[in-house]
Amino acid sequence: MALIVQKYGGTSVNDDERIRIVADHIAHTKSKGNDVVVVVSAMGKQTDNLIRLAKDVSSVHPSREMDMLLTAGERISMSLLCMALSELNVKATSFTGSQAGIITDTVHTKASILEIKPDRVLKALNEGYVPVIAGFQGMSVDKEITTLGRGGSDTTAVAMATALKADICEIYTDVSGVFTADPRIVPNARKLLNLDYDEMLEIAANGGKVLALRSVEFARRHNVIIHVRSSYTWETGTWIKKEDKQMEEAVVSAVTHDTSEAKITATKVPDKPGIAASLFRQLADNAINVDMIVQNTSTDGNTDISFTVPRTDLETALAVTRDALPQLGGTEVLADNEVAKVSIIGAGMKTQPGVTALTFETLASCDINIEMISTSPIRISCLIRQDAVEQAVQALHNAFGLDN
Amino acid sequence: MALIVQKYGGTSVNDDERIRIVADHIAHTKSKGNDVVVVVSAMGKQTDNLIRLAKDVSSVHPSREMDMLLTAGERISMSLLCMALSELNVKATSFTGSQAGIITDTVHTKASILEIKPDRVLKALNEGYVPVIAGFQGMSVDKEITTLGRGGSDTTAVAMATALKADICEIYTDVSGVFTADPRIVPNARKLLNLDYDEMLEIAANGGKVLALRSVEFARRHNVIIHVRSSYTWETGTWIKKEDKQMEEAVVSAVTHDTSEAKITATKVPDKPGIAASLFRQLADNAINVDMIVQNTSTDGNTDISFTVPRTDLETALAVTRDALPQLGGTEVLADNEVAKVSIIGAGMKTQPGVTALTFETLASCDINIEMISTSPIRISCLIRQDAVEQAVQALHNAFGLDN
Repeated sequence: MALIVQKYGGTSVNDDERIRIVADHIAHTKSKGNDVVVVVSAMGKQTDNLIRLAKDVSSVHPSREMDMLLTAGERISMSLLCMALSELNVKATSFTGSQAGIITDTVHTKASILEIKPDRVLKALNEGYVPVIAGFQGMSVDKEITTLGRGGSDTTAVAMATALKADICEIYTDVSGVFTADPRIVPNARKLLNLDYDEMLEIAANGGKVLALRSVEFARRHNVIIHVRSSYTWETGTWIKKEDKQMEEAVVSAVTHDTSEAKITATKVPDKPGIAASLFRQLADNAINVDMIVQNTSTDGNTDISFTVPRTDLETALAVTRDALPQLGGTEVLADNEVAKVSIIGAGMKTQPGVTALTFETLASCDINIEMISTSPIRISCLIRQDAVEQAVQALHNAFGLDN
Repeated sequence: MALIVQKYGGTSVNDDERIRIVADHIAHTKSKGNDVVVVVSAMGKQTDNLIRLAKDVSSVHPSREMDMLLTAGERISMSLLCMALSELNVKATSFTGSQAGIITDTVHTKASILEIKPDRVLKALNEGYVPVIAGFQGMSVDKEITTLGRGGSDTTAVAMATALKADICEIYTDVSGVFTADPRIVPNARKLLNLDYDEMLEIAANGGKVLALRSVEFARRHNVIIHVRSSYTWETGTWIKKEDKQMEEAVVSAVTHDTSEAKITATKVPDKPGIAASLFRQLADNAINVDMIVQNTSTDGNTDISFTVPRTDLETALAVTRDALPQLGGTEVLADNEVAKVSIIGAGMKTQPGVTALTFETLASCDINIEMISTSPIRISCLIRQDAVEQAVQALHNAFGLDN
C-alpha cells in the first residue's frame, strides 16, 4: 500500500469519455489498497479557449484577471472528475489551489510555489476520500489567485507529492514516457525505462516536452520519484529517480531538439572586459532567459557576440540589445529566427570521452554546420540551421546506437 | 455622487460584444462621479452548458462538486468584464464570492447568505477601483464554495448593496422593467414606474420572473432601493422602494401567471383534526414548498385535500403523499400537471373592496372554472386549467383597467 499522486494533463481529461476513463483508473489504483491524490489540468483546449475569449473582449489583459479567468478551467475538470468518481462509488472531493494550501509568491501568470499547507488534503485522505486538486493554480501570500505558468500542473503534482511524502508521483500524459528522441522525427526512437534527475533536467531544458523543467528541478531537490506514463495505454512508462550507482549508465540516453529559440548577434563589439556583462544584465532585468552565448575570437580588437533567447522574447531582446548597442560600441544587431538546437544527453558522458568528437563528426558527415556550441557535464548542444534539424536528430540517434 | 451597485445578468454579458457594452455603461456611470460596485452572473448559457457537461460525465452529482463546477461561470464573466473595463482605462478588480466576504450557510446549491464582510471590496472602492463581484456564489462557514440557487445573483447584489449602504441597487436584465402583465401574453401591458416591496414580493412569488423572490425579501428587510432596468436600452425602468404614503395607490398593479406548479389531491380523507397537519409536516421535512391548499367541504365525514407544489418537486411530493395515505386514511392520490395560477396584485386592494368579485365575474364571463383560491391582503390567486391561462390574463388585465 502506497500513497500515489497522479497528475492528469489536459488531453487526459479532454471530454466526458476521457474523464470517465481517468476515474476508472483512479478507482482501480485505489482498489489495490493505495491512497491516491489526484492533480488535474483544465480540459483539453479549455485554456486556449479562455485566452481567445479574453482577446475577443479586450486588448488589455491585466495579469491578475488573466489568472482569475484561467483558474476557471481546473475548477471545471476537477469537479467533473469528482462526479465521475462518485458514480464509481469512490468518495472524492475537489480542492482549488487555495483550498489545497498551495501558497505562492505574488507574480501573476508565473507564480512560484513558496509553501504547501496540505491540512485539508490530509484530512480528506484520512477520511478515505480521493482529494482531486486543481493543478497550475495557487493563492499568493497576498491572498490573490495566481497561476504557475506553463507546465504548472506538473509542478503542483511534484510539490504536492513532496508535501505529502508520497511514494510515487505519476505524471499521465498523451505519450507513453520519455523517448530517446521525438518519435515523430525518429520513428524507431525507444522509450527510456529509467532516467536520473540530471538527465531528465537536461532533456526538459533542451526541447523535451513531456515534463516541465520546474517540476523536475523540484523533484530532484526533494527526491520525488516520478513515473511518466500514458493515460491511454497505462503501460509502464519512464521512471525518474536518483541515479542508481550500481546500474551501468548509458553513455547517451537521448537526442533532443528545440526550435523555440532565436539567435541575436551584435557585430563588431570592442573586445573589452565588462562589455558583454552589461548587455546580459539588461537582458536579465527584462526577465529574458539567455540560453547559449558565443563570443567570436577577436582579431582586430572587435568581436561578434551571439546568443539565443526564446522566440517569444525575441522582440523585447532585440529592443534591449539595440538600446545597448551605442554603449557596447558595436555596429549592428542581427536577428535569426531559422535556428534549431540539437542536444546529446547522457549521464555516462561524464566518464566517457569521445562524445563531442562523434557529435561533430556525425553532423559534419551530413554537411550540417554548427553555429554555436554549449555543454554541460552530461550534455552537448549544437545550434544549427532549422531546416537541418530532422536530419541531424536522425543521424545522431543512429550514431550513438539509440536505434536498436 | 452616489454609491451604486449594478447587477448584470447572464444575457447582459452573453458574449464579447455585450461585455464591452456593459463595460461602457459602467465607465459612463463612473464618469458622472458615482462609485460603482458590479455584481455579474455567468455568461448567457454558460451555466446550462456546465450542467450538461456534468450530465454527460456522470449520473451522480454531489452538490459540493456542482457548486465547484458552476462557480467557474462567474469567474470567467467577471475577469473578462475587468479586462474590458481596463481597456476603457477604468481600474477594475474582480472578487469571487469568497473574496468579497459573502459568508453563507452550508446548504450546497441553495445556500443562504449569513453575513457579508466586504473589507476587500471597500478597500478596492477606496482606492478608486470598480469591484466586480461574482454573483450567485459564496463561501460557507465551513470554508466550502457554495451557490445561492436560482436568482442568486440578484440576492448577491441586494445583500452587497445592504452591506455597503449603497444608494441604489440597479438590476440590469433583458426586459426594461416590471410590467402590468407578461408582454408576450398581453401586448399592451405597461411598464410599472414604481412598486412597493409588498407588491414586488407578490409579483415575484406568483410568476413574475424579473426579480428573484429572495432578493426582494432582502431588499424589503433592509430598505434597499432597487431599480430594475434593461441593459439593452438604458431607459428608466421600475423603481422598487418603500410605499410612498402620499402617492395614491393603484387598486391593482399587475396580473401575473405561473405555470410552474402542479396540483396533488388526496381523496376521501377522514375529516379529523390533525390529519392534514401530519401530511404537510412531512412535505416540509422533504423541503417541498406547498403553495395553495384547499380542503373541500365535508358532507360524509370525508374530505378531499388538494394542494399545489412546484412541478420540479412533484415526484417527491407524490411519493410523500402516497406514503402518508394509509395514515391519512384516504382513498387515492391524484396528480394534475395541467394547472396554472393567475394572480391579481395591488397594494390598493387593502382598502378597495370589489376586487374579488370582479375577478370571479371576469373569469366566469370567459367560462373559466376556478379550482382553488388563495388570497393575501394585496393579492388574489386563482388556480385554473393551464390552457385557459392566456385568455384569463388578458381578460383580467382589461377588466382592471391596466390596458390603457
